[in-house]
Amino acid sequence: MGSDMDGRKPKVVILGGGFGGLAAARELRDAPVSVTLVDRRNHHLFQPLLYQVATASLNASDVAEPIRKVLADQPNTEVLLAEVDRIDVDAKTLTFTDGDGLGYDYLIVAAGATHSYFGHDEWEENAPSMKNIEDALDVRRRLLLAFEAAERAKDPESREAWLTFVIVGGGPTGVELAGSLAEMARHALKGEFRHFEPATARVVLIEGLERVLPGFPPKLSAWARKDLESMGVEVQTGTMVKSIDEYGVDLDGHRIKSRTVLWAAGVRASPIGESLGAELDRSGRVTVEPDLSLPGHREVFVVGDLALVVQDGKPVPGVAQAALQGGRHAASCIVASLSGKPSTPFRYKDKGMLAAIGRAAAVADLPNVELTGSVAWVIWALVHIYFLIGFRNRLFVMASWSYAFLTHDRGARLITGSPQVRSRWEKPRY
Amino acid sequence: MGSDMDGRKPKVVILGGGFGGLAAARELRDAPVSVTLVDRRNHHLFQPLLYQVATASLNASDVAEPIRKVLADQPNTEVLLAEVDRIDVDAKTLTFTDGDGLGYDYLIVAAGATHSYFGHDEWEENAPSMKNIEDALDVRRRLLLAFEAAERAKDPESREAWLTFVIVGGGPTGVELAGSLAEMARHALKGEFRHFEPATARVVLIEGLERVLPGFPPKLSAWARKDLESMGVEVQTGTMVKSIDEYGVDLDGHRIKSRTVLWAAGVRASPIGESLGAELDRSGRVTVEPDLSLPGHREVFVVGDLALVVQDGKPVPGVAQAALQGGRHAASCIVASLSGKPSTPFRYKDKGMLAAIGRAAAVADLPNVELTGSVAWVIWALVHIYFLIGFRNRLFVMASWSYAFLTHDRGARLITGSPQVRSRWEKPRY
Repeated sequence: MGSDMDGRKPKVVILGGGFGGLAAARELRDAPVSVTLVDRRNHHLFQPLLYQVATASLNASDVAEPIRKVLADQPNTEVLLAEVDRIDVDAKTLTFTDGDGLGYDYLIVAAGATHSYFGHDEWEENAPSMKNIEDALDVRRRLLLAFEAAERAKDPESREAWLTFVIVGGGPTGVELAGSLAEMARHALKGEFRHFEPATARVVLIEGLERVLPGFPPKLSAWARKDLESMGVEVQTGTMVKSIDEYGVDLDGHRIKSRTVLWAAGVRASPIGESLGAELDRSGRVTVEPDLSLPGHREVFVVGDLALVVQDGKPVPGVAQAALQGGRHAASCIVASLSGKPSTPFRYKDKGMLAAIGRAAAVADLPNVELTGSVAWVIWALVHIYFLIGFRNRLFVMASWSYAFLTHDRGARLITGSPQVRSRWEKPRY
Repeated sequence: MGSDMDGRKPKVVILGGGFGGLAAARELRDAPVSVTLVDRRNHHLFQPLLYQVATASLNASDVAEPIRKVLADQPNTEVLLAEVDRIDVDAKTLTFTDGDGLGYDYLIVAAGATHSYFGHDEWEENAPSMKNIEDALDVRRRLLLAFEAAERAKDPESREAWLTFVIVGGGPTGVELAGSLAEMARHALKGEFRHFEPATARVVLIEGLERVLPGFPPKLSAWARKDLESMGVEVQTGTMVKSIDEYGVDLDGHRIKSRTVLWAAGVRASPIGESLGAELDRSGRVTVEPDLSLPGHREVFVVGDLALVVQDGKPVPGVAQAALQGGRHAASCIVASLSGKPSTPFRYKDKGMLAAIGRAAAVADLPNVELTGSVAWVIWALVHIYFLIGFRNRLFVMASWSYAFLTHDRGARLITGSPQVRSRWEKPRY
């Protein structure tokens, strides 16, 4: 057990240092409680910019900040690096994977989501997705190695397969990845290879529904598609993936030969939700009360991607804003409960949605207006800088973007990983 | 085989994209040859600043630059990502670990060095050293995890062992690591832990000889020691390591309990030297002719850490400057040979030695003057920025140093690695 700093204060444990957990911890800054935030990583990750780590635009540390640094100035809060194995809501304890554990008076579960292959977990090996820094660095490695393998390829067919990149999933992450990758091939790598022109690389974006960015208004989807196509991205909508292997993707009726497939199609809630004993929906989300508490356990709250909150007949989307607002709400319910007040129902306030497409191009679906192009991109950039945690990160991300804008250069084109030859990616077949 | 871009031009193959290899390639920019640079990594690494990656001051990509980007503007040069398994100097071929290969007319071997445990390879697991990016990120991970483990430690003895850091080797790398680590504990981590004060961390620097920085004049060694001690580093000179295990280090007569030991004591030349068929010294370096060519093979040159060059009765040191000058010299010998001229003997020009100690403190042993303190640090900083490759890297390293100087903050305090619990470092024992 973590030592009890103040035995008389109620103990609030927060599981997860993402948007929800961190917002909850900050909201409790001045509350008469002792807060312990537990995360299996030492850093908060700004997931909306993770694709820029994968495409070598930003450093891993630009989009991450040590959790204990963020909360260093909160004397009532401690941070523990530990992985939670299970939660016992009756005993009010968490057990860590290393056998250690922690008790609580109040618990906020903000464990987030992981990727889902819709029952085809075997696709993951050949179509990785990105939820954390390691994932993003693995994708970066695969992208850069594909170009290296193409340079050494012995026949045009093999080279073409190395230079074909398929991204499955046309939501914001897929769109942003496709745009950034197409731009990298056309600009950042220009003139560096002797056996092919990087601009000839094919970037194919596959979406099962009838349009990209299906969560956005149709007009913005159409604009995004046009912009992606102008950058050379091939967009295939209404197309389902039937199988993925090392050499390509089978779609309805046709096959794309590709050595690099990325998955941006599905998420499912963290498996820790299962130990809460509540009802889960198809994607593992926990059904919560209107105040975000666990049915039958007013002292346990579930927020962010792990919570299923239905509002106006629709589930609240799994976005940063919803997690942030949920975390704050759960914390305020705890503060209310401490002074004997009833908790209030949570109400998600949709502040709009943004997706970047390429160099100074984005779409913005704001409450009263729909924007496209460079105006939307400026809003996108400002919002992302604003919500990025850490002054240094803000400074260096702005500097990186400015430098990239002026030079088309990408600052983090490193292939890292095991120095040993371990997989096909380190020892490309030609 | 890489495709032959111009069959009539002599083919120069350079093995290694470090200081020596890159300098050779650049020197051949306008030569009537076709150059192929082969490296198993996609980036040139600026090793002198690698310790700052390990201590979370710089990003990996700040000290590395894609080799093909550096050489993109040399039309006569191609870059291949491949690991060379062996060299056949009679057949004039290289064979890659993936079975592929390459022929040459001229060969420059600049494969560098790796670490040496003086016959105790079993120490490596518990006392890693740093030669590449992955090594540095592993060290960063161990350092940061030790503080996390200390926060969760259950008894003072265990906490103390997690907060004791031993660095073996008092050369420039060991001194720079010790200084940077002491500074991180005292400043960057201040106020972030609830169960101990990071400034109480012990940093112990062990050196077998009678003084630190044994390659420097005694006056500078004494100054460096005093400065390290003023930063809280315990310096133990004339002390030999007898054994290293997971829980500490045995020295002559005493034991230091420590969960984090780093090795900065020895290097040995790349094993590729063995396939050259020439005489090797005790640390695997290849004995070369005065012009750096391989005895009996005027078309093969060995430069940098892999070459044993004796000058004025002493071996030329394994430093960046020597590799740079050697690479340039080998290239110029090839150019001379093309026009039928004889090659000239190599002469290393010692431009001095520098070692940073802490915040704005360094020692500089320059040809005509010995400097210490902030003046030496300014020279150190300027020289490192100057030799760093890539304009963006220079800009961002300067920005990082300036920011760190003003705030004591470190920008890259990420624990990354496998998200699975794999080793004792991910699942600390308490």
